[in-house]
Amino acid sequence: MAALVERLYPLCRSITGDGVRQTLAMVGESIPLTVHEVESGTEVLDWTVPPEWNITDAYVADPSGRKVIDFRESNLHVVGYSVPVHATMSLDELAPHLHTLPEQPSLVPYRTSYYEPTWGFCLAHDVYESLVDGEYEVCVDSTLAPGSLTYAEHVVPGQVADEVLVSCHVCHPSLANDNLAGIAVAVNLALALAEENPWYTYRFVFAPGTIGAITWLARNAERVERVRHGLVLACAGDAGSLTYKRSRRADAEIDRVLAYVLRDRPHRIVDFSPYGYDERQYCSPGFNLGVGCLTRTPYGGYPEYHTSADDPAFVSAESMADTLAVCRRACAVLDRNRRYVNQFPYGEPQLGRRGLYDSLGGRSDAKAAQLAMLWVLNYSDGEHSLLDIAEKSTVDFEAVVAAADALLAAGLIKE
Amino acid sequence: MAALVERLYPLCRSITGDGVRQTLAMVGESIPLTVHEVESGTEVLDWTVPPEWNITDAYVADPSGRKVIDFRESNLHVVGYSVPVHATMSLDELAPHLHTLPEQPSLVPYRTSYYEPTWGFCLAHDVYESLVDGEYEVCVDSTLAPGSLTYAEHVVPGQVADEVLVSCHVCHPSLANDNLAGIAVAVNLALALAEENPWYTYRFVFAPGTIGAITWLARNAERVERVRHGLVLACAGDAGSLTYKRSRRADAEIDRVLAYVLRDRPHRIVDFSPYGYDERQYCSPGFNLGVGCLTRTPYGGYPEYHTSADDPAFVSAESMADTLAVCRRACAVLDRNRRYVNQFPYGEPQLGRRGLYDSLGGRSDAKAAQLAMLWVLNYSDGEHSLLDIAEKSTVDFEAVVAAADALLAAGLIKE
Amino acid sequence: MAALVERLYPLCRSITGDGVRQTLAMVGESIPLTVHEVESGTEVLDWTVPPEWNITDAYVADPSGRKVIDFRESNLHVVGYSVPVHATMSLDELAPHLHTLPEQPSLVPYRTSYYEPTWGFCLAHDVYESLVDGEYEVCVDSTLAPGSLTYAEHVVPGQVADEVLVSCHVCHPSLANDNLAGIAVAVNLALALAEENPWYTYRFVFAPGTIGAITWLARNAERVERVRHGLVLACAGDAGSLTYKRSRRADAEIDRVLAYVLRDRPHRIVDFSPYGYDERQYCSPGFNLGVGCLTRTPYGGYPEYHTSADDPAFVSAESMADTLAVCRRACAVLDRNRRYVNQFPYGEPQLGRRGLYDSLGGRSDAKAAQLAMLWVLNYSDGEHSLLDIAEKSTVDFEAVVAAADALLAAGLIKE
Repeated sequence: MAALVERLYPLCRSITGDGVRQTLAMVGESIPLTVHEVESGTEVLDWTVPPEWNITDAYVADPSGRKVIDFRESNLHVVGYSVPVHATMSLDELAPHLHTLPEQPSLVPYRTSYYEPTWGFCLAHDVYESLVDGEYEVCVDSTLAPGSLTYAEHVVPGQVADEVLVSCHVCHPSLANDNLAGIAVAVNLALALAEENPWYTYRFVFAPGTIGAITWLARNAERVERVRHGLVLACAGDAGSLTYKRSRRADAEIDRVLAYVLRDRPHRIVDFSPYGYDERQYCSPGFNLGVGCLTRTPYGGYPEYHTSADDPAFVSAESMADTLAVCRRACAVLDRNRRYVNQFPYGEPQLGRRGLYDSLGGRSDAKAAQLAMLWVLNYSDGEHSLLDIAEKSTVDFEAVVAAADALLAAGLIKE
Repeated sequence: MAALVERLYPLCRSITGDGVRQTLAMVGESIPLTVHEVESGTEVLDWTVPPEWNITDAYVADPSGRKVIDFRESNLHVVGYSVPVHATMSLDELAPHLHTLPEQPSLVPYRTSYYEPTWGFCLAHDVYESLVDGEYEVCVDSTLAPGSLTYAEHVVPGQVADEVLVSCHVCHPSLANDNLAGIAVAVNLALALAEENPWYTYRFVFAPGTIGAITWLARNAERVERVRHGLVLACAGDAGSLTYKRSRRADAEIDRVLAYVLRDRPHRIVDFSPYGYDERQYCSPGFNLGVGCLTRTPYGGYPEYHTSADDPAFVSAESMADTLAVCRRACAVLDRNRRYVNQFPYGEPQLGRRGLYDSLGGRSDAKAAQLAMLWVLNYSDGEHSLLDIAEKSTVDFEAVVAAADALLAAGLIKE
Repeated sequence: MAALVERLYPLCRSITGDGVRQTLAMVGESIPLTVHEVESGTEVLDWTVPPEWNITDAYVADPSGRKVIDFRESNLHVVGYSVPVHATMSLDELAPHLHTLPEQPSLVPYRTSYYEPTWGFCLAHDVYESLVDGEYEVCVDSTLAPGSLTYAEHVVPGQVADEVLVSCHVCHPSLANDNLAGIAVAVNLALALAEENPWYTYRFVFAPGTIGAITWLARNAERVERVRHGLVLACAGDAGSLTYKRSRRADAEIDRVLAYVLRDRPHRIVDFSPYGYDERQYCSPGFNLGVGCLTRTPYGGYPEYHTSADDPAFVSAESMADTLAVCRRACAVLDRNRRYVNQFPYGEPQLGRRGLYDSLGGRSDAKAAQLAMLWVLNYSDGEHSLLDIAEKSTVDFEAVVAAADALLAAGLIKE
């Protein structure tokens, strides 16, 4: 995953353009992708797909002709969606187009202006302070023209058509944790699921933030009805512990599953808020999907956030592996979390004559298995899921699943 | 408010009679009142309006002819609704008619006997202890005769016919906190609301306790159905912090509003109990109105309660102003606490093209306003009120209202 | 109760057989029982009544002919439902049939094998360790043959046909706390209730564990629908404090009542689990009765559990009396916990003209009684029971009942 982050890092992504296409091409080397191109001007829900933005070069040269800001050093130096400009101007005229972080003077901020045509540069405040008076040459060699918005899907087929959505944004330029780490974890989650013949169909969406998710939602009205659960993955690689942000429903099954999976490790669970990543769109009141958001340190919660310090050194293979492990476990629980109905609900069915009872007692593993079966039998009333039963009984989910399997095989419960 | 308390203090109020009429006349100098007279004998719910009681003088003179108890010194000296008597009797015969507070020997208690015909005097236990044996002259120059019960209403018209009821009892004689302070706060709340073109119609009821509220309820069966919220005001002027007693419903909107308004200051919130002031009647199970009770130190909670120590010095202008401020804020929240429906519930509507989005970020007040709009949009599903949204988001209620106003103006939400 | 425990202790009970019959005969000396015999082979829910087991003698004699394990010393020495055997074998052959508690080496465990035909002996691990090599004579003089399962009922008639079930298992051999103490408490509860003309009909079921309760449920399909509440009594005599295990419903009336009755004393309340005593059957999802389980130290919670140390010295008359007192109080609350409807729900009805109001105040007991009446009036809306009102008001349940009685007599509330 760390290697994928390194390779993706230099690309200049935005909400449209070749940087996104190159990113998806690299992802497609690991998992097959269906890439969608949606024409500029297409109406998507309340929005319109914007013109496509591409950029080849950009710089600011000082009165001596030295490039003091250079896109080729870092794509963060240019405000995303900057309109083309080539001019000479005084520092005073230039200044309103320069963005810095006075409180983090050595870092370059990340800024965009997708829907208001302007141009600008981002630079370290230290550099800004060193600029001398005089005439500056300003160049943004970009195009903003009819084209298309690009997003991609990858599907891991399941046993049922009901879907689990895994979504991550692919529109940020050279920022590693936000969201190359999320992309890397998603790719590896897809690879892992493909080997497990999952119950649900897992759909991975790689799309630019906001407009990409909105475009996907607009073009998938029918599919949305099949989305039972979902996760937005972001900030998946920093050193912090995991944070799960609940869906708007607050008690959706995905919320229960993540709480269960995270319960034995340091973590935070926060309520839904209409700010952050694309859960904003999936959880808008009209859709109100059971989609939560899993991050390590969340949105805006670390000083490197949206700055040049969010580089590949800021994320670690260990953290991404840890995020992936939690995702895999969550999918495993989700996949087996079903409701059964006890076929012999009056009194306990006799386990002994079905070979499910250790008659003379003694072996503690047999006892534990019997106890798990009694829990599953008693609460398999069509209302309680196996996760409900695991939580109620404090029996491990896997042991509950094993008990359910034994009872299913014996015909004592049915779905 | 302190001046009004001072002026009202000397009047001898009871559940009927001229003391109530004089009180309402003084209140009417500040706000126009509709005064109602309800004839003795009128059946009101399970009760009957009692005969009217008036009193001109009362005293007990000791064997030497000295008036040891004198109504003209304080109207608390006579048990409310005492029947007329003029007789001479020994101290032993007199004693069962004398009421004192042995544990607060310098204070005169407040006692009444509305529905059981008797007469009596209240006096300081110290004075009682000093009484010598001998013949005492006893005089209660009162009348208990067919007449009427008096109560009054003041209405601040609102934009809708739905009403907020503000009720306070006007039947206690010379007791300042209970309830002249409540009357004074109610009068000033009415004056303040009149300048604010409120949403709700605010109805102020000044009525004797229990029988007055019962009479109002009996005569206003249709109006009661328009009462959406209400507050009983009492003990509004002592030095204690505020106590809000929930309506019987426990989660009525008024309960939510008061909890919100009080949250940042020292306060107590207590559950409904069928004891206290006229919330007992408004919250009887047949009506079960959303009416709470706001006091400072509540019913029976201070040693001066129902004694001669509850005099104008016991209440302060500051305390009454504080109670008034909370009432005004509660009315302001109530008035703007509405539910809206997002007209673009699928995905986020694009704020930018409607001029509601600060595209390049930066200004923190613009950010806060956008965040408030996102909260209002996401939760304006017809179920969540603006107060719900304020509580969920921890955005100030006023900022939520401002966001809702902007979204209303842009046609993004509707009522 | 201690005497009954002593008398019942030596009998060799199992899930069928003469030991159960003798036990029920002794119980029948205190309270009349209807004894039921259900033929072996009868199908009961998912189970079949097993063959009847009886035993006259059993021993193991060592190579020297000395009886090293002897049923006549303690019936715990034989695994319950051991098939007959008379043979000579080496210690190695014998060993798999011997059960000990290596961690409690001086105690004899209690073991059974009802549904898998085998034989076995239980003995102290210390004795086991002392066994020498050589040939052992093994004798189990038992019969396992068509017969019947025996259980008994005792009914205390109530004013209504709705029933409260009190159930205890009678299948354990010489174990005092589990469950002779439970039997003794049940007998005395029945005697006490008979003197109190209870509201509910109380049905006491004395039956072998699991198969007995299942048999009762199978044969009483119609009666089960009349069971409103129930208690399983077990482990009623040890020195520990009381534990109440909630019914599967978790908020059944019996759960509320036991929580109320236990609230002022050391106790534990635990959620339902499908393990323990016959609440497992009564609370199986098809029946889902409001039946909880009252014990002192619960199932498996004390080292003497299911060993020879659970002898009459382990239980005390005081503990059984304490359990009985709580059962009686629970029945008293249950019996009077009804819902009434205020006939004058609009405003407070006038208590004074009905002689229910202490007009001039003063007497604190009269005040308390009035307050209790106001609570009952306000919450008698058909939804709140007297127990709800006691909990809400913190007025003692008995005072709430007294208030309800006064209001019933005055026609102010009705059932």
